[in-house]
Amino acid sequence: MRALLVVAHGSRRAASNEEVKVLTDQLHSQILSSSQSNFDFVRCAFLELADPSIPDGLQDCVNQGVDEVIVLPYFLSAGRHVTQDIPDIVQQFEQSTPSVAIKITPYLGTASGLPDIMLALAK
Amino acid sequence: MRALLVVAHGSRRAASNEEVKVLTDQLHSQILSSSQSNFDFVRCAFLELADPSIPDGLQDCVNQGVDEVIVLPYFLSAGRHVTQDIPDIVQQFEQSTPSVAIKITPYLGTASGLPDIMLALAK
Repeated sequence: MRALLVVAHGSRRAASNEEVKVLTDQLHSQILSSSQSNFDFVRCAFLELADPSIPDGLQDCVNQGVDEVIVLPYFLSAGRHVTQDIPDIVQQFEQSTPSVAIKITPYLGTASGLPDIMLALAK
Repeated sequence: MRALLVVAHGSRRAASNEEVKVLTDQLHSQILSSSQSNFDFVRCAFLELADPSIPDGLQDCVNQGVDEVIVLPYFLSAGRHVTQDIPDIVQQFEQSTPSVAIKITPYLGTASGLPDIMLALAK
């Protein structure tokens, strides 16, 4: 089994965290309705200020029986959180739970489709 | 003439601001090569910590002869910056420069294409 874990920064503003959860649910519905999806489910986690934490999100995936988790950093730029904090937390989890393979994708800001969705938004 | 102004938060990390500039150049090339584009050019501006500021970015558009600017908030969630700070700055500029019409699009985090580009990134 394979899970996608969307990792956002987390905010003191509950509505911002809720937005990430809604997007995660959207992604989850999308993979369930697609015959081509490589994922069994989608969850989200937060680096700080909101729950679940990244380790808790990863553990939840493991509890569901996945052997591979793809972590997608929901960030627009490659600051310290993306280059260091998230990889560090993931590596620590991997060391304590070697039964699961975890890969981190490039962060959202590098997505090749960004210009297209921005132009669509601006129309 | 009509311009698209991508407004990002701005960072102390020069590389993050540079990423926004590269994306802006990408968008600019894309509108130039599209026969369906509604824009004559694309610029970026920053709410804080980087140049140009939003008023400077808007003024640059005005100096180029545009009569309409579409401001696209390059933000993932609707915090105070999106709901208050950017609209306030834009409104102030509009009052001092009534020759230009400025519209603010929904922020990036609301783009309907986000789930698709995230799934593409995770593949």
